[in-house]
Amino acid sequence: MQDTGAAPPTSWSRVVITAVRPSVDGGRWPIKRSLGETLEVEADLVIDGHDHCRAVVLHQAPGAAEPVRTPMMHVHGTLYRATLTPETLGTHTYAVRAWTDAFGTWQDEFERRVKGGEPQEELSIELRVGATLLEPAAARATGADAEQLKGYIQAFEEGQVQRALTDEVARLARAYDPERGAQESEHLAMNVDPSHARFCAWYEFFPRSSRDDGAHGTLDDAAERLPFIKRQGFDIVYLPPIHPIGTTNRKGKDNAPVAGEDDPGSPWAIGGPLADGTRGGHKAVHPALGGMPAFERFVARADALDLKVALDIAFQASPDHPYVEAHPSWFNQRPDGSIRYAENPPKKYQDVYPFDFTSEDYPAMWRELKHVFEFWIDHGVRIFRVDNPHTKPLAFWAWCLGTLRAEHPDLVFLAEAFTKPAMMYALAKLGFNNSYTYFTWRNSKYELTSYAEELYQSEVADFFRPNFWPNTPDILHDYLVHGGRAAHITRLVLAATLSSAYGLYGPPYEHVDNNQHPDREEYANNEKYEVRAWDWDDPHSLQPMIRRVNTIRQDHVALQHMRNIRLHTTDNNQLLAYTKHHDDDLVLCVVNLDPHHTQEGWVELPLDALGLSQEQPFGVHDLLSGERYVWQGHHNFVRLDPHVVPAHIFSIEPFN
Amino acid sequence: MQDTGAAPPTSWSRVVITAVRPSVDGGRWPIKRSLGETLEVEADLVIDGHDHCRAVVLHQAPGAAEPVRTPMMHVHGTLYRATLTPETLGTHTYAVRAWTDAFGTWQDEFERRVKGGEPQEELSIELRVGATLLEPAAARATGADAEQLKGYIQAFEEGQVQRALTDEVARLARAYDPERGAQESEHLAMNVDPSHARFCAWYEFFPRSSRDDGAHGTLDDAAERLPFIKRQGFDIVYLPPIHPIGTTNRKGKDNAPVAGEDDPGSPWAIGGPLADGTRGGHKAVHPALGGMPAFERFVARADALDLKVALDIAFQASPDHPYVEAHPSWFNQRPDGSIRYAENPPKKYQDVYPFDFTSEDYPAMWRELKHVFEFWIDHGVRIFRVDNPHTKPLAFWAWCLGTLRAEHPDLVFLAEAFTKPAMMYALAKLGFNNSYTYFTWRNSKYELTSYAEELYQSEVADFFRPNFWPNTPDILHDYLVHGGRAAHITRLVLAATLSSAYGLYGPPYEHVDNNQHPDREEYANNEKYEVRAWDWDDPHSLQPMIRRVNTIRQDHVALQHMRNIRLHTTDNNQLLAYTKHHDDDLVLCVVNLDPHHTQEGWVELPLDALGLSQEQPFGVHDLLSGERYVWQGHHNFVRLDPHVVPAHIFSIEPFN
Repeated sequence: MQDTGAAPPTSWSRVVITAVRPSVDGGRWPIKRSLGETLEVEADLVIDGHDHCRAVVLHQAPGAAEPVRTPMMHVHGTLYRATLTPETLGTHTYAVRAWTDAFGTWQDEFERRVKGGEPQEELSIELRVGATLLEPAAARATGADAEQLKGYIQAFEEGQVQRALTDEVARLARAYDPERGAQESEHLAMNVDPSHARFCAWYEFFPRSSRDDGAHGTLDDAAERLPFIKRQGFDIVYLPPIHPIGTTNRKGKDNAPVAGEDDPGSPWAIGGPLADGTRGGHKAVHPALGGMPAFERFVARADALDLKVALDIAFQASPDHPYVEAHPSWFNQRPDGSIRYAENPPKKYQDVYPFDFTSEDYPAMWRELKHVFEFWIDHGVRIFRVDNPHTKPLAFWAWCLGTLRAEHPDLVFLAEAFTKPAMMYALAKLGFNNSYTYFTWRNSKYELTSYAEELYQSEVADFFRPNFWPNTPDILHDYLVHGGRAAHITRLVLAATLSSAYGLYGPPYEHVDNNQHPDREEYANNEKYEVRAWDWDDPHSLQPMIRRVNTIRQDHVALQHMRNIRLHTTDNNQLLAYTKHHDDDLVLCVVNLDPHHTQEGWVELPLDALGLSQEQPFGVHDLLSGERYVWQGHHNFVRLDPHVVPAHIFSIEPFN
Repeated sequence: MQDTGAAPPTSWSRVVITAVRPSVDGGRWPIKRSLGETLEVEADLVIDGHDHCRAVVLHQAPGAAEPVRTPMMHVHGTLYRATLTPETLGTHTYAVRAWTDAFGTWQDEFERRVKGGEPQEELSIELRVGATLLEPAAARATGADAEQLKGYIQAFEEGQVQRALTDEVARLARAYDPERGAQESEHLAMNVDPSHARFCAWYEFFPRSSRDDGAHGTLDDAAERLPFIKRQGFDIVYLPPIHPIGTTNRKGKDNAPVAGEDDPGSPWAIGGPLADGTRGGHKAVHPALGGMPAFERFVARADALDLKVALDIAFQASPDHPYVEAHPSWFNQRPDGSIRYAENPPKKYQDVYPFDFTSEDYPAMWRELKHVFEFWIDHGVRIFRVDNPHTKPLAFWAWCLGTLRAEHPDLVFLAEAFTKPAMMYALAKLGFNNSYTYFTWRNSKYELTSYAEELYQSEVADFFRPNFWPNTPDILHDYLVHGGRAAHITRLVLAATLSSAYGLYGPPYEHVDNNQHPDREEYANNEKYEVRAWDWDDPHSLQPMIRRVNTIRQDHVALQHMRNIRLHTTDNNQLLAYTKHHDDDLVLCVVNLDPHHTQEGWVELPLDALGLSQEQPFGVHDLLSGERYVWQGHHNFVRLDPHVVPAHIFSIEPFN
C-alpha cells in the first residue's frame, strides 16, 4: 500500500444535495413569503449508482425548539420537492436533509430479483442482506413496531419471500430509518410577513385636503373619509408626512421657489413650528392637522373600521427642524459653516437638508432615526412607506429594519425607490417588504409582458414584492393624461390584477384628473404644495368601478397571490391576456391597452395547463359587467370597447 | 436620545457588491478556465445617492504572494467589468473590491457647478471641500506626485477653478486613493486547466487491433499508428484499458456469456494473468500488449510526435484481480461468503466485481485507487478518461481528484457519465475537467440548438466542459447507421465545430462502419470483445475529410473556444447555422442535418453583432471545399447536397 499524502475524509456521504431552491444569491439573503402562502422547496439529490434517496425539509419557525420535518417527494430524475405552509411571522430557516434509503433500495432490487425469477437459494441469501438492513430500525423501534420488525427479520432469515415485498415492512423501515450518512444543506432564511404585505390595496390621500370646502383639513376631517375608503374596498390608508412643515425657503404652489403667505408648504420639508412656538420634527404632528391627539383619534377610527394606517417616513429635514440646531453634525457642513442643502448640481433644493449618514456621530443619529419608527410604532402604526431609501446607505437600512423587525415581525416597509434595478433589488434583499416599481411606465403589451416575467417568473419573485401604483403625487404618466377615463380604468385593472399588492393616489385618480404640469410628469395644482377639495361621493367618477375591482379581488383568492400569473398569447398587440390560478379559483383578465379604439381578437389559452378540457365547453363570467359566455377550445374571441369598459375580468367556471 | 437596543454597526461601507459573476451555485464550486482563455468578471455595485464607485478585481494566482489588481470599467447602470488572463495552472481566486470614489464624485459635481454658472464665491467654498478630499492622497504620495498634489491643494484653496477640472488631478487622486470604506466580495475559486482541456481532438483506438493482419497487436504495433494519428490532426491518443484481462466468466464475441478459447475478453474486465504466471491489475499492462516496456516505448513515441496519451481508468475488478484475494473486504461480501457481481437486478455482469466504496477499510482502498492514477502519472500519463464515475461516490472523486490536482495541476480527467444531468454536472463541479455529453443523441435542429444553449450559453458553461463524441465503442447511433457516409461527415463537422473539445472512436468511424448490433445501440463485431484489423491509409475512407476538419480547427482560433458560439436562424429545419468568433477570426458553419436529401435555404446573420456592414459585401471562404463566395446583407442562400459534402465551414472575411 502506498501512502499518497492527504488522508481520505473521515466523514462523508454518498448523497450530494445540489441547488436547494428557492434561494437568493446562493443563500446570501432571505427569501420572502407571507402568511397564507406556501413555500415549495426543491432540491436535486445526486447519489452514485442506482440507490434511492430519502429527504426531508427541516423547517424551523422563529422560537421553535425543533425544526419540523416534511418529507420530500421524488418528482423525476434527481428532483425532489416538498411544500410547507409557514404559520408564524418572522425569520424562519429551511434546509434539506437527505440520506440513502438502504432498505428501500434493497426492497426494490429484491422485487426485481423475484420478478426476474431468481432461484429461492439466491433469494434466501439476499433476504439475509435485507434482514441485516432491518436491524438498525428494529433497534430504534419500541413496542409493537419493535416486535413486528423482529418478526420480519426472522421471516427474512427463514427465506419468506412474500413478507419482504410488503408495504408494511417498507413503512416500518422508513419510520425507524437510522438515516445513515445523512447530509444537510445549508440552512436558508425566509422572512414571513403578514398577509397584507402580499395582498393589499393602498389608498393615498392628503389629510389636509379632506374637507369639502377647500379649507385646511385636520386629521379629524380626514377620519371622516375613512368609512368611504373602507367601503371602496381598500385595506391600507397611506398618509404623506403629517409633521410640522418648514417655513424657511418654503416652496409655493406647484413648487414655486417662493411661497405665498398662505401656502401650506410641502409635507416633505419636515420640521417646523408647533402651536406652542417650539419646533417639532419627525415625532410631531402638524398643528394644522390637529396635532398628536387628532392623529390618535384617526388611528382609533381606522382600527374600528379594520383599516390599517401607513405613514410616510422621509429622512430629511427642513432648515427649521429641531435636529438642525441640536445636532448640526448630523448634516453636511460646508467649509463656510453653512449646512449643505439637498442638491444635484447645479440644482439645489433649498427647503431641505439631507442627513449625513457618514457623520462621525452616526451611531447616535442612526439610533435616533430608528427611534422615529419606534415612536410611530408606539402610536399604533405598523406600515411605513419610506421615501427615497436609495439615497441613504444600504447598511443603515439593513441595521434599522433588521433590528426593528426582530422585535416587530409584523412591520411592513414599502420602498419608494425609482432607481437602478440593482439598487431596488438590493433594498428588497436587505429588508424592504414591498417596493414601488416601474409599472407606471410600462404601458405597451411588450413592456407589461416582459416586466411581469421579470417580477413574477424570475428569481426576483422570491425576494422583491412589487406594489403597483398607476399614479402618485409625483407621477402622472402621459398615458393617463391622453387616455383619460378609459386609460384610468385600464391601468386600475392592470395594477389590481397583475399585482396582488397595489395602490392608488386616490382623489385625483377617481376624478380622472389628467391636468398635467406643463414641465413635469406630475399633477398640476399639485397637492404636495396646496390644499384641494374633492367630491368624496361622486357616482360619475371612477369610485364605483374602483369599488367593483376591489370587491372582485376580495372574492377571488387567485388575485391575492403574485407568482401564480400566466401570460397568454393574443393575436392583437393591444390586447393583453393573463390568468391567475389558485386552488379552484381561475381568473382570466383581458385588457384593451388602446384607450381610444375598440380592439378585438383571439385569446389563446393553454387548456391543459389550466386544467380545462379541450372537448368540453366552459363558462366565463365577466366579474366587471356581470355577463356570462360559453367558451370552448384553445381560441376564443373578445372585443373590448374602451368607451364602455376596456377590460374583462373573467372567472373561468368549468361546467360539471 | 433613546437607547433602542442593538447598536449600529461599527464598520460598514456605502458600497454593496451584489452578484459577482461568474460564480457557480453562489460560489460553492470553482469555475473552470484554461490557459489561453480570459475571465470576464462582472459585478453590480450599488451605492446610495449619486456617488461614483471604483472597483478592482483581486486575482490571486496559485503561489502568488499578492493578488493582482485589475481596475473594473463602468459598463452601464450598476454594472462593472474587468477582463483577466490567467497564466498559471491550478486553483486561483478572484474577488471584487469596491469603494466610493470621493474625489471623482466631487470633481464631477464641481464641473456641473461650473457649467451651471455658480458664482466664484460658491465655487471657492466647494474648492475647499475638494482640497480636503485631496489631502489623504497627498499624504500617501511620494516624490514628484506628492509635490504636485500639494500644489493642487494650494490652488484649490486659492479658488483656482480650472486646476480642479484637469484630468491630471483626477489621475493623481486615483493613484493615491485611500480607498476609504472599501468593501470586498467573497473570494471565488477558479481552476485553470491546460489549454488542451478546452481545445483538443481525441482519437480512440484499441491497441490490440492495430495490426493489418488481424493478429493481436502489441503497444509496439499501436505505436506504429501514431504518425498517422498525428498527421490526421489529433492531439490526444486514448487507449481503452491496457491491463491484464480476467479469464473467469470472460465474455465472448459481442458480449456472448461464454468466451471461445481464443476470445481476448473485454479490456474492462480488469485483472488477470501476467506472463510470469502471477496476476496483475490496474498497475500492470496486458502481456499480449507487450507489458510495461512496450507501454513505455509507446509513450516515448507519442511524446516525440507531440501527441498526448490518455488512459482509461475503470474502477472495477475481474474475479481474477489481485485485489480480490488481497483485499476481499474492498468488495461487497454476500452472506454466503461470495462476492457480489456487478448487477442491476435481475441483470448480472459476472465478469466484473464492483468495489464497495463504503467498505470499512475504505481509507486504504481509496488511497490505493488514487495510487492507480499516481502510478500512471509516474509513467508519463497526464490525461485520464474515467469509466462510469457516476457509480462511485462523489465524495471519493472530490477527494481523489482534489488531492491529485493539488500536486499535478496539469492533469485532465474526462468523465464518462451518461446519466442524469444533475449527476453529470455534479461530477464537473467536483473536479472533472471534461465530460462526455448527450451530443450523440442530439440530432435534430431543435435538439442541437437547445443543447448548445444549455451547454454554452447558460451558467453550465462555467463549470462543465463538454467533449463531443459522435461515436464510442458503446454507442453507434441510428442516425449514423441509417445516414451512412453523409451522416458521418455531418456528425464529425458538428462535433468538431460546435465543441472545441471532441473525439472520435477512430477506426470504425473513418470506415463508416454502420453495422449495428441487432439488440443494442452499439457496433456489431465490437472491438470490446474481439480483435479487428483496419486499413490505416484508405483515401476512400473519411480519413482525408477528418484531416481537413482538424486542420481547419488548428488554423481557426474561433473553433478553439467554447462559449463564443452564436446560433442563427435559417428558414429550413434541416439546416443548422452557427458562428464562432474570437478576435478577428469569424467562422460560420452551415450543416445539412438530412443525410439523404439536398437542402437549401436562407441563413440569417445578425450583421451588427458580428461586426459586419449591411451595405458592404463580404467574402465567405468554404474551408472544406475551398470555394469562395461574395455575400451581402442579412440573408444569404445556401444549398447542401449530402452526397457531395453536407456542410460548409466558412471563414467570413470582410473586404477592406
